[in-house]
Amino acid sequence: MLLLPGICYSKDMNAEALHMLNEDRLFSPDPTRRHLARELYATVRDLPLICPHGHVDPQLFAEENHSFGSPAELFIIPDHYVFRMLYSQGVPLESLGIPRRDGGATETDHRKIWRLFCEKYYLFRGTPSGLWLRQELADVFGITETPDAANADKLYDEIAAKLATAAFRPRALYEKFNIEVLCTTDAATDSLEHHQRIRESGWKGRILPTFRPDAVIKLNAPNWRENIDALSAASGIGITDYKSFIAALENRRAFFKEMGATATDHGAESPDTKPLEISEAEAIFARALAGNRDEQYQGDPYFFECHMLTEMARMSVEDGLVMQLHVGSYRNHNADIFERFGADKGADIPTPTGYTYPLKPLLDRYGNHPNLTLILFTLDESCYSNELAPLAGHYPTLRLGPPWWFHDSPNGMTRYLDGVLETAGVYNLAGFNDDTRAFCSIPARHDVWRRVVCDYLAGLTLRGIVTEKDAQEMALDLSYRLAKSVYRL
Amino acid sequence: MLLLPGICYSKDMNAEALHMLNEDRLFSPDPTRRHLARELYATVRDLPLICPHGHVDPQLFAEENHSFGSPAELFIIPDHYVFRMLYSQGVPLESLGIPRRDGGATETDHRKIWRLFCEKYYLFRGTPSGLWLRQELADVFGITETPDAANADKLYDEIAAKLATAAFRPRALYEKFNIEVLCTTDAATDSLEHHQRIRESGWKGRILPTFRPDAVIKLNAPNWRENIDALSAASGIGITDYKSFIAALENRRAFFKEMGATATDHGAESPDTKPLEISEAEAIFARALAGNRDEQYQGDPYFFECHMLTEMARMSVEDGLVMQLHVGSYRNHNADIFERFGADKGADIPTPTGYTYPLKPLLDRYGNHPNLTLILFTLDESCYSNELAPLAGHYPTLRLGPPWWFHDSPNGMTRYLDGVLETAGVYNLAGFNDDTRAFCSIPARHDVWRRVVCDYLAGLTLRGIVTEKDAQEMALDLSYRLAKSVYRL
Amino acid sequence: MLLLPGICYSKDMNAEALHMLNEDRLFSPDPTRRHLARELYATVRDLPLICPHGHVDPQLFAEENHSFGSPAELFIIPDHYVFRMLYSQGVPLESLGIPRRDGGATETDHRKIWRLFCEKYYLFRGTPSGLWLRQELADVFGITETPDAANADKLYDEIAAKLATAAFRPRALYEKFNIEVLCTTDAATDSLEHHQRIRESGWKGRILPTFRPDAVIKLNAPNWRENIDALSAASGIGITDYKSFIAALENRRAFFKEMGATATDHGAESPDTKPLEISEAEAIFARALAGNRDEQYQGDPYFFECHMLTEMARMSVEDGLVMQLHVGSYRNHNADIFERFGADKGADIPTPTGYTYPLKPLLDRYGNHPNLTLILFTLDESCYSNELAPLAGHYPTLRLGPPWWFHDSPNGMTRYLDGVLETAGVYNLAGFNDDTRAFCSIPARHDVWRRVVCDYLAGLTLRGIVTEKDAQEMALDLSYRLAKSVYRL
Repeated sequence: MLLLPGICYSKDMNAEALHMLNEDRLFSPDPTRRHLARELYATVRDLPLICPHGHVDPQLFAEENHSFGSPAELFIIPDHYVFRMLYSQGVPLESLGIPRRDGGATETDHRKIWRLFCEKYYLFRGTPSGLWLRQELADVFGITETPDAANADKLYDEIAAKLATAAFRPRALYEKFNIEVLCTTDAATDSLEHHQRIRESGWKGRILPTFRPDAVIKLNAPNWRENIDALSAASGIGITDYKSFIAALENRRAFFKEMGATATDHGAESPDTKPLEISEAEAIFARALAGNRDEQYQGDPYFFECHMLTEMARMSVEDGLVMQLHVGSYRNHNADIFERFGADKGADIPTPTGYTYPLKPLLDRYGNHPNLTLILFTLDESCYSNELAPLAGHYPTLRLGPPWWFHDSPNGMTRYLDGVLETAGVYNLAGFNDDTRAFCSIPARHDVWRRVVCDYLAGLTLRGIVTEKDAQEMALDLSYRLAKSVYRL
Repeated sequence: MLLLPGICYSKDMNAEALHMLNEDRLFSPDPTRRHLARELYATVRDLPLICPHGHVDPQLFAEENHSFGSPAELFIIPDHYVFRMLYSQGVPLESLGIPRRDGGATETDHRKIWRLFCEKYYLFRGTPSGLWLRQELADVFGITETPDAANADKLYDEIAAKLATAAFRPRALYEKFNIEVLCTTDAATDSLEHHQRIRESGWKGRILPTFRPDAVIKLNAPNWRENIDALSAASGIGITDYKSFIAALENRRAFFKEMGATATDHGAESPDTKPLEISEAEAIFARALAGNRDEQYQGDPYFFECHMLTEMARMSVEDGLVMQLHVGSYRNHNADIFERFGADKGADIPTPTGYTYPLKPLLDRYGNHPNLTLILFTLDESCYSNELAPLAGHYPTLRLGPPWWFHDSPNGMTRYLDGVLETAGVYNLAGFNDDTRAFCSIPARHDVWRRVVCDYLAGLTLRGIVTEKDAQEMALDLSYRLAKSVYRL
Repeated sequence: MLLLPGICYSKDMNAEALHMLNEDRLFSPDPTRRHLARELYATVRDLPLICPHGHVDPQLFAEENHSFGSPAELFIIPDHYVFRMLYSQGVPLESLGIPRRDGGATETDHRKIWRLFCEKYYLFRGTPSGLWLRQELADVFGITETPDAANADKLYDEIAAKLATAAFRPRALYEKFNIEVLCTTDAATDSLEHHQRIRESGWKGRILPTFRPDAVIKLNAPNWRENIDALSAASGIGITDYKSFIAALENRRAFFKEMGATATDHGAESPDTKPLEISEAEAIFARALAGNRDEQYQGDPYFFECHMLTEMARMSVEDGLVMQLHVGSYRNHNADIFERFGADKGADIPTPTGYTYPLKPLLDRYGNHPNLTLILFTLDESCYSNELAPLAGHYPTLRLGPPWWFHDSPNGMTRYLDGVLETAGVYNLAGFNDDTRAFCSIPARHDVWRRVVCDYLAGLTLRGIVTEKDAQEMALDLSYRLAKSVYRL
């Protein structure tokens, strides 16, 4: 093993683990840059975590004694980042305990699932999942061994034992993780009962809902009709036409806002935002309610979604909820996996995306409005420097969300900073968000971002592009302040 | 403050400024690479500047005593790179003194405008505008302080005092900047009276016109009809049909050439170059002259522009003017800003662009012709390695222009060199051009390019990809020789 | 000349050559990273070469005494990587001895061709061709001088003298190069007589065919009708309709497999894979056989090729041949060059390519099938992180081929690893292949890959992303094991 200059090697850990978890990880090997990165990082590493967008289940916090379950339930079964990699190498989802839509048999022995994961752990070499898992195991569970077939059982027992203790309840970890605020993502029809119970419990954790109306806006969503009925029920407004649909949405937005929401979120396949004439929108909605799926109307869902994005911007102008746009994912690309296991099974594949043309209709209406903040996310990195940074570097309403999903990784972050910073500057960005359903990975994810940012800023400083004082401010902004201010938290 | 190895810190400047303006800025922190970059840079830093493409107003040089006006007139009001960033953070253009189309009130107190700029100067952290502004302030005005609210008035007074002196006249600065030649960009209808006066003045500065016929070629350009009349007047050829239009263009090209022009420039939204049958071109032009805008003819401007690009290549084959193609910008994307303030207000947004298919018609006709040099520019960096470098690495007529606009930055240059050098080689590139209307930023822009190039070549040398002797030649080529030879200057 | 730290300079070579050919070439200048890269490289540099995809002519090995011909025949005339760069700078193909389609005069004096090449050798500065040529000259021919006008004749004589000796016969070099297996690319109609003779010769070299049916699948291929007749003859199945066409293809696949083939290869302009109804495929094929080219049927070749890609996947599921897909090249873009010199003249230009939508039909049918391995290649690097890595990181049938063609270069490899490794991991990649017809450049090409990979992994290790042990495994996988296992060799 190579001894790195400037790293203290202790005898308490095996040398490998120490190397991987050393305090300089993710910093450039150049000693001067590493030194400066370390100085910058020291000033942000312990800042509270702002989590303005993610998919953690609020139920975790609704009851004081909620448990994460088994190690397999914590690390594998709910995390499509993890099981899609195993699946890509021929591991059947059934053997990982992923529930089947038809209720058919899947592996129920969680220790077996864990063993399979440990045997295949080498697949995560060089991946961000590998980084998060390692840091999560070390920082949350005190495990510095690399999982493999030989230590699988031992690790299972260690983790299971810890998960059974009070210190590993979600609320306890929320506090340990030093989270300042955590926003969940919730259907427009959600009763927010868990958020309500958290409020009523007197617990001081700040868990806020986010309004995500995709399932009622996408006319071709599975169970759309049922979702509309649920929206009627939730809002107390019987939805009989486009007008009452809009009223119901506005009603729910107001409720979410009351419950602490500061933002909405929209997942569309494209950022097209062309609004319809109201009469057209009414006609499309009427056809959808009537279940009319004539071939001549097959474009309805697409046109309606475009229209609704601009309509949602209109509502944001009125109620001040920050609008997030996550576009460019082909959901459930693998037909067989979707049929057998349903959505969110690691088979969502990005598509080429453009922003300059598609966003123009929305921006023509609201792009200069002081009430609107619209945060854009992309999976198509070729848009960073070509479209997104120039857009955000001009329109006062636009901010760029952090590198998303597949790009939430050291290289992805570097490409993002390379691609957007020069044109958009720092102050048209929205800081970081972890966007995860894996609660225990949150500190690791923020830590990767903070490290990469500090190393990047060290590079800018050493090339004389920014001063050290600038770098210090930018590190604070990117690690903490921007997420808080842009999301109005 | 971190002391960088190998940098001399003096007491004459504050340490921050010295850090930022140190002689090694933009070089890699690796000491060996930095050392070699410094050696390469020493051989190109003082070479004269070749400025083959830009937007400096020739009027600056037409009168010996022309003044730049106030600090706000020099740095802010005419520079959309600067004010678009302020606008993106909510600063109204009116408060920056940007003239309104309707003549309505805007800020007239230039000191106030300057103050606002200084207060918001932190927005330029990490941006190329920030780099240029800093170097311009230091090298041209001897100011090494970072502008802020506290020193705004003092800086204003210092700059204003200098601008009032003879040493800060454009001609004096042209000489101080060691410019060898500077090409302007001029409408096809321009009388070139300023160029004429420069010639007649006996001043030795070499200011050459460039023929840019967009305003008469784009049938949907604002005031197209008036532009055609102006073209008739300028050429002395009454334009009554397509044939006389072509004759008038040829006449003007000949005049530009007489006046020293060596190039033309074309700004199109797409690089489509499909030529029309002559009868079709005649019919479209006749409809345009007649003001016929029937819906069935709404494609006319697009088809005509495509046709004219290939037609312009034909003329270049005949008269030897180098042809430049700047494509891929959606002009005036912000409808409200365009309506209130007009064009060139920082709201031009790049679009996805392709070259392989669209350029084929032009290349089929003239791609192998020894008289033609066609220089391609892109805002879509995903074309560098995929389309542009392979095209330039094959067709003898093609050269690649330097990183353009949003990509005229340290990262943009690095991505450009990474993307094109391996496939196109050095000798299918066109060196650097500053493409600016901000005359005083020209030395800073060339300096950034020369530094980035030398650091890049140092990296290639240290990895054994090129020899030091090669690197030295390549540095000279990229800094000086290629721009001169490719533009036939 | 700068003395690099940690490099031994000997007196046996001139200092420049030594610098370029030093043992640390292509490694980062950072001393720690360089040190670790060197350690990793030491463990893979002498591994046998696995060459699973390329265009070497099998005839080279069919006769024991086959000679490469003159230096021009070895380095220039057959290598479009080389002559396209000369052509791009105005050197006529005739003067390089490239044969004309019409049999007209081209340069026949190979020494003159070689001189021209040496005079223009500086054009290859910074290009991968420059790297390969240098290493080939040094390692194969013992020449460390940089070719130029002055030494052209001397080098010609040295190389010619060596080529006349037994040590420079293809079989001898195959053994010297330590090649373990080399796959050629062969038309579906090929008799594989050279492969047969190699087998029968008792020589131990492993030269395997690859089934490439493009010329019979593309209905608009030059000489398609003759190709179909040749397919009938080769298979012994008279092709009279779609059914017999499919039977003939299956027959040839079986023959290729018998002859050792483990893979097929498909070059399409797009990865569209939409299958047709059988009746439609039959009708299209019947029209093609009948020579029916009515305008209404002009889409036939495109639709048929899409269909056949999925049909080829079906055959791979059945016979276990690995399927390779090379898409995104606009072949013969330069009409004039194609007319005068034919195909493969350096005028193939990449086009923008997408994978997520176009591949779905094929993946819907066979994307989860355990028998299928489909290796994807791209010329559009913007797909690496956006589409290809997510696809390969999910579908068990997909693997990503190495950086292809213009991207088979140090920067291309770095962008590839940056773009795919985090999402696809190492084990969804297919290692390296040299894809060349220039047999003597094979060791240099593999060496560039192994060096870049080791340097890259050293960077990951020093940032704590992988352990040294991981890096060691990954280096072995990427240099040797993956190509062998993925191609089932």
